[in-house]
Amino acid sequence: MSLQTKKPYEALTTETVVQVVAPLNHFDDVNQLEIKEIGDGNLNYVFHLVEPATGKSLIVKQALPYAKVVGESWPLTLDRARIESEALIKAGEYVPALVPKVYHTDRQLACTVMEDLSDHLILRKGLIQGEVYPKLAEHIATFLAQTLFHTSDFFLHPFVKKEQVKAFINPELCKITEDLVFTDPFFNHDTNDFPEELKSSVERLWNDQTLKRETAKLKHAFLTRAEALLHGDLHTGSIFVTTDSTKVIDPEFAYYGPIGFDIGQFFANLALSYLSHFHHSKDQHKRQQFQAYLLNVIEDTWTHFTEQFSQLWHSKGQEAYMQVAGVEEDFFAQVLEDAIGFAGCEVIRRTIGLAHVADLDSIEDQALQLKLKEKALALGSTLVRERKQLTRISRFLETIRGVAHA
Amino acid sequence: MSLQTKKPYEALTTETVVQVVAPLNHFDDVNQLEIKEIGDGNLNYVFHLVEPATGKSLIVKQALPYAKVVGESWPLTLDRARIESEALIKAGEYVPALVPKVYHTDRQLACTVMEDLSDHLILRKGLIQGEVYPKLAEHIATFLAQTLFHTSDFFLHPFVKKEQVKAFINPELCKITEDLVFTDPFFNHDTNDFPEELKSSVERLWNDQTLKRETAKLKHAFLTRAEALLHGDLHTGSIFVTTDSTKVIDPEFAYYGPIGFDIGQFFANLALSYLSHFHHSKDQHKRQQFQAYLLNVIEDTWTHFTEQFSQLWHSKGQEAYMQVAGVEEDFFAQVLEDAIGFAGCEVIRRTIGLAHVADLDSIEDQALQLKLKEKALALGSTLVRERKQLTRISRFLETIRGVAHA
Repeated sequence: MSLQTKKPYEALTTETVVQVVAPLNHFDDVNQLEIKEIGDGNLNYVFHLVEPATGKSLIVKQALPYAKVVGESWPLTLDRARIESEALIKAGEYVPALVPKVYHTDRQLACTVMEDLSDHLILRKGLIQGEVYPKLAEHIATFLAQTLFHTSDFFLHPFVKKEQVKAFINPELCKITEDLVFTDPFFNHDTNDFPEELKSSVERLWNDQTLKRETAKLKHAFLTRAEALLHGDLHTGSIFVTTDSTKVIDPEFAYYGPIGFDIGQFFANLALSYLSHFHHSKDQHKRQQFQAYLLNVIEDTWTHFTEQFSQLWHSKGQEAYMQVAGVEEDFFAQVLEDAIGFAGCEVIRRTIGLAHVADLDSIEDQALQLKLKEKALALGSTLVRERKQLTRISRFLETIRGVAHA
Repeated sequence: MSLQTKKPYEALTTETVVQVVAPLNHFDDVNQLEIKEIGDGNLNYVFHLVEPATGKSLIVKQALPYAKVVGESWPLTLDRARIESEALIKAGEYVPALVPKVYHTDRQLACTVMEDLSDHLILRKGLIQGEVYPKLAEHIATFLAQTLFHTSDFFLHPFVKKEQVKAFINPELCKITEDLVFTDPFFNHDTNDFPEELKSSVERLWNDQTLKRETAKLKHAFLTRAEALLHGDLHTGSIFVTTDSTKVIDPEFAYYGPIGFDIGQFFANLALSYLSHFHHSKDQHKRQQFQAYLLNVIEDTWTHFTEQFSQLWHSKGQEAYMQVAGVEEDFFAQVLEDAIGFAGCEVIRRTIGLAHVADLDSIEDQALQLKLKEKALALGSTLVRERKQLTRISRFLETIRGVAHA
């Protein structure tokens, strides 16, 4: 507490960041560090500190008091640094191998010192390159099952769970999702971003009352259902990978929300990758192979997730009703329905909303890019509208295949 | 804040309570007060202060640091006094005529000085006596619509709503409901309380897997769905009435929960009153008349509630999706389904759980009392199991009539 009253917030520099890591005694000699700022500067500074003599390294991530997106800048709470750090530490209790290790958090500076993962690649980039990660599904399933189960009412004492809900109230970051994922793309809003050629499809979407009626329910679920501590932004840009390692990063959007949300965002970004490989894959055989791999990742993630969650359910469940016949089945059915609906919203907003994905936007062939974005809109709408009928993961995969190859 | 560090909590007495009201200058001479403690002493002290010369009076309600039920005593947070006071003040912003006026709150003493309502009668007692309250439905509907709408995401800015969720996190009181309403009555638990003659019906209920599977969903909703600031305990013992006045009291269970919960508890207690009038009403004509009145109260409450909520929806709604066709209908359908399910749980727990209702327990004719409790169990189970089919308030009323007269 003394730190908090003494030191005001200031943006770190490659010079001053040394003072943050010096007390940790991580390095042999902090005067010999090579320091680079490697963030994109829109939301956070990310300092990479290496000691060449020992090969030791660290990351210092500092939240900036504003957000910049396409030239716009608006104030954004520094509290997200606390949330991110506490969410990483919480996940580290259950899946230490799947998140960066946190060494130190400075609340006043809104910064976190953590494990350097620069030997890893951002999953989105790897997928665009057509790389296969054989353990990805199992790792993400483990991350999801362990973090979601252990922060839910199925495991926590209700007093502890409610304290956690309170600690992870995250209004400003949630508002970004409420607006950019669940609202703006479904209305004629100036944050939207799509080429003129998509206009008629987008207008059809804006006029689709059934789609909007169903999206209203998904948004309401996001606003109200405090089921478990979510990552809150689990797209393929929030996952670092090597062939045999997976690390989930950047949980600054963490809050207590519906269990299907993280799963849905992950699935949506794999589905977008699927579409993008009509371009990225060099030949038809390779494309088919990679697209099949992506669907396998979705299927295996769901299978491993339900298996692990079920094992936790029966071995560590604390809630009185967990052994009643049918309760577990009802739970998984609801999670799948939610996940597919949330995936639909994510696919739509990544196509016409403010924040796009490189998977589609990097396609140089503009005609193909447009065609794939049309497919993305059709897929997202179908997922939201028909999620109650997609009662098995196989039907979700069929829907992706069906829309993609229509 | 200074008060909070200076004065420790101490139980008030008829002597010391004067010090709490003296600074308010409500009375002409605090040395001339007649003071009585009128609470039941299980959870709170309730001091009634009257100044005979002026006729002025006040209530001072103080939370005790423990709860006593049937001889048992366990510690219970004093924070419930803050919650109760803040919930009364919040309700007073929208329905000042329907809650006691709060004059002062002392956090350290966990006490609230409020309007004296001793010219009112507890609704439960009035209903047992067969009294008709012509404005009850309209008043309770107004209370429900105004408090629930104005504390929900439909009206509040998401930042404000999330701050309110945090302020009304109420773990200990919620736990009482989680246990006594949603759990213990459905399992062989030692808090349950029913005569030996009901044993076989109760065991049938404990073995009803469909009922328990559905109750699991209702409990999960209570645990997770932060939709609006609820009263949290809106049975007919929490409502004070005269012929033309209605006051909702005792919101110490207030927290952010599913909108159908308060409605369901109110309906359940009217349904229990309905059953009890097979005894309380003196002749068949009077009974039929009063039972018809009770069903009218349920129906009118629902009608007025939806009308008022709908008016607020269209005049003051802030959420982007509120004008999309079908969203409002979907919302009311969900609220009705939830309310009926919660009503079912309440009917069951008031029959075989820890806390009974005088409506049934005061029936001297033991055979009739048993018969009516059997009906209550049948009614509660039907409501929980079939709530999705009871898509109109008329079908809910038919169910009550049908089970009662079977």
